[in-house]
Amino acid sequence: MSMSGTRGARERLVVIGGDAAGMSAASQARRLRGPGELEIVAFERGHFTSFSACGIPYWVGGDVTERDRLIARAPEEHRARDIDVRLRTEVTEIDVAAGRVRARDVDSGEESWTSYDKLVIATGARPVRPDMPGMESPGVHGVQTLDDGQALLDTLARARGGDGRAFRAVVVGAGYIGVEMAEALIKRGYEVTVVNRGREPMSTLDADMGRLVHEAMEGLGITMVNDAEVTKVLTGGTGCVRAVATEDAEYPADVVVLGIGVRPETGLARTAGLPLGAHGGLLTDRAMRVRGHENIWAGGDCVEVLDLVSGQARHVPLGTHANKHGQVIGTNVGGGYATFPGVVGTAVSKVCDLEIARTGLREKDARRVGLQFETVTIESTSRAGYYPGASPMTVKMLAERRTGRLLGVQIVGREGAAKRVDIAAVALTAGMTVEQMTALDLGYAPPFSPVWDPVLVAAREATRKIHGAL
Amino acid sequence: MSMSGTRGARERLVVIGGDAAGMSAASQARRLRGPGELEIVAFERGHFTSFSACGIPYWVGGDVTERDRLIARAPEEHRARDIDVRLRTEVTEIDVAAGRVRARDVDSGEESWTSYDKLVIATGARPVRPDMPGMESPGVHGVQTLDDGQALLDTLARARGGDGRAFRAVVVGAGYIGVEMAEALIKRGYEVTVVNRGREPMSTLDADMGRLVHEAMEGLGITMVNDAEVTKVLTGGTGCVRAVATEDAEYPADVVVLGIGVRPETGLARTAGLPLGAHGGLLTDRAMRVRGHENIWAGGDCVEVLDLVSGQARHVPLGTHANKHGQVIGTNVGGGYATFPGVVGTAVSKVCDLEIARTGLREKDARRVGLQFETVTIESTSRAGYYPGASPMTVKMLAERRTGRLLGVQIVGREGAAKRVDIAAVALTAGMTVEQMTALDLGYAPPFSPVWDPVLVAAREATRKIHGAL
Repeated sequence: MSMSGTRGARERLVVIGGDAAGMSAASQARRLRGPGELEIVAFERGHFTSFSACGIPYWVGGDVTERDRLIARAPEEHRARDIDVRLRTEVTEIDVAAGRVRARDVDSGEESWTSYDKLVIATGARPVRPDMPGMESPGVHGVQTLDDGQALLDTLARARGGDGRAFRAVVVGAGYIGVEMAEALIKRGYEVTVVNRGREPMSTLDADMGRLVHEAMEGLGITMVNDAEVTKVLTGGTGCVRAVATEDAEYPADVVVLGIGVRPETGLARTAGLPLGAHGGLLTDRAMRVRGHENIWAGGDCVEVLDLVSGQARHVPLGTHANKHGQVIGTNVGGGYATFPGVVGTAVSKVCDLEIARTGLREKDARRVGLQFETVTIESTSRAGYYPGASPMTVKMLAERRTGRLLGVQIVGREGAAKRVDIAAVALTAGMTVEQMTALDLGYAPPFSPVWDPVLVAAREATRKIHGAL
Repeated sequence: MSMSGTRGARERLVVIGGDAAGMSAASQARRLRGPGELEIVAFERGHFTSFSACGIPYWVGGDVTERDRLIARAPEEHRARDIDVRLRTEVTEIDVAAGRVRARDVDSGEESWTSYDKLVIATGARPVRPDMPGMESPGVHGVQTLDDGQALLDTLARARGGDGRAFRAVVVGAGYIGVEMAEALIKRGYEVTVVNRGREPMSTLDADMGRLVHEAMEGLGITMVNDAEVTKVLTGGTGCVRAVATEDAEYPADVVVLGIGVRPETGLARTAGLPLGAHGGLLTDRAMRVRGHENIWAGGDCVEVLDLVSGQARHVPLGTHANKHGQVIGTNVGGGYATFPGVVGTAVSKVCDLEIARTGLREKDARRVGLQFETVTIESTSRAGYYPGASPMTVKMLAERRTGRLLGVQIVGREGAAKRVDIAAVALTAGMTVEQMTALDLGYAPPFSPVWDPVLVAAREATRKIHGAL
């Protein structure tokens, strides 16, 4: 083990993790401070930087044909801007007291220490791998990184060499990733079964709205198994996966994809004594500085964020937040000022032509934080009813009892449904009541909306439910 | 002339105008007060009630095949709910002192007075018909009502019987209606010329954004003539229109469509001594009550509304506002409580596959009300760059100097562009700064947005422009 680099007059920024949060931070810091002032070293244990993990299902499904299309900025591009990206290099320890990190070359196993003046932790998240027999078998795949995606595609390519029957995939979990991966595998010609612990898929929605997703998935030919917990992964003679078992049944599988969700990758941070929250994520202040540590920032999937609606911390692993965190961190590291105030819990997804969106609190979220509420669910259309292509849309809205403050919106529909949730996301951020929302001046023209936008219809119904006959 | 109806214990609500504002008011009042309490009489000078004027271009263009698809609620449906709709009956005088209106049967010419306890004025708008030779000739059409639309279609059907050459249409004015009508006429096989007073079409946008619309129109084969004012309409031997003349040129025309804009239809109100604003619209309070008149309400295209961004009154004739006004009026007439706080100036439109949107102030609006500002214009895409179907989008944003308060947004793009303006519409309503907007938790997934939504990219650039390097 050697000590790399000596500290000169210029500062050194060390970044752990080469994806959205880490490299956005590095890029923004570089924009504000040149290489004469700030040295930037970024450690990434995989082969890639700045890639879109959210794009992996579309790559696996074939909508995106080249892996490199998912790479926003390659290592060479970062290096051209004097960011010293070290791939296949895993940080194994943070020595907070001494201000240094220990990194290991993944291929050679060689380790060395690198000192830092400023540190950015952007270690991301790891897929939940339940501790059960067979989970580490060949053919069981997470889909967090491009390396994961490549490994899955390699397995799928090998499975092609089979005995003539249709190949079978089991997706464990029916959140966004699980549902997107199920569709990707159907597109590749697999028989797909999704085994889901919850009552309905997409547990980021209330079950009544998840039911609509369930129906759409079945329409695609996906087999949904709800209320079922995987207890083990069974392997065949070669040691490869051959089936997934629940308490009640076995589901044959040539490949298993884990879509159960992710946990913050904060082992390093925990060992280093950095503050973690109830969800296992790093705790930061508004400037994305790790609490109690003047020269350490953290962002992306390894941190917890403030939910502005509930007032509590959550773990929300999403590329869009990671990019914002990186931007904020880079600005602050670079001597500027920026903050990340929190999230309202917006998420959108697509299953075939079904668009799914949510923001704010579900019923159970609201109950958990002591909020009483009313709900309404309305049916409307994406365009004026008489305009060609108008398609149905279901909007569910939660509003706080008495005050009428908007608490959450869920939308399931076809074209034009998902991004309507942005209306509610901004209204939640602004703390609007559903009655205030009824007066919102939203874009109206027959190709885009009925004269009352579906979100306005829901707000009007919610207002009636809160305040009676007006 | 006779005096119709005697006044019993129940009140009588008289509504002038049977379209969106008037009939929404009547319907909502009826919902809150039954026929035993409230008699409702609605006068409409045309043949239809509750129709979508915004749908007329799509009917003329053939996207909507049946006129009746544009009718949200027919007279019989209103009558079934004890709303006494009197078609082809034009109110010719409001006698405020006596609380009565005089109405004339359009066909018989017979007149009679009807007394009211409460009055709703929803007389709409009329197309601007410049006072010049030939404007009243056969073949010159406004498109405000279904009757107008039918008359235009009748002219188009007659023009079909011509001499073999392509038929020529001139659209005067290049606002929303003008542009939509130009596309409708192109779809019907006409040679279309649009004569426009402004520098670029769609003067609801700044000219730099209007330029993008100009290019799209030319792409459709529409001839755009900008900076040109029509001076007269020339007629042929039959008295029908044959050309439109400007100072510099003549444009042959088998049909002329007026898309110059509309003015509040407030002749009755003016004669009755009701308060009108600088734009000729009725002035109301927040409850949509005509100022100074306890028992008279007004809504829809005949009123002025508060622009929440500039703080000044505007005339914004749009069906979506008219419906909201009607809802508010009906609630208040029915003994409830509702208000219409104002607008932010949102409008969306479509020309072929080009989507056009605006909200808030244009540069000249901001200057006119004494606001200093910065502008940014950014290029982004509707979806993640790697996702199939990602299309370019241009977003222009205005923010107040120093405070950074959002002042306006204009968007021109393809699928998914227009309704993104709703994000800005809500942010304007909430008085957000562009820096606050950079943290908005908008829906992100590759099929719907780049990881930085185009609106966030614009907000980030605007923030930089306002505050420097952050």
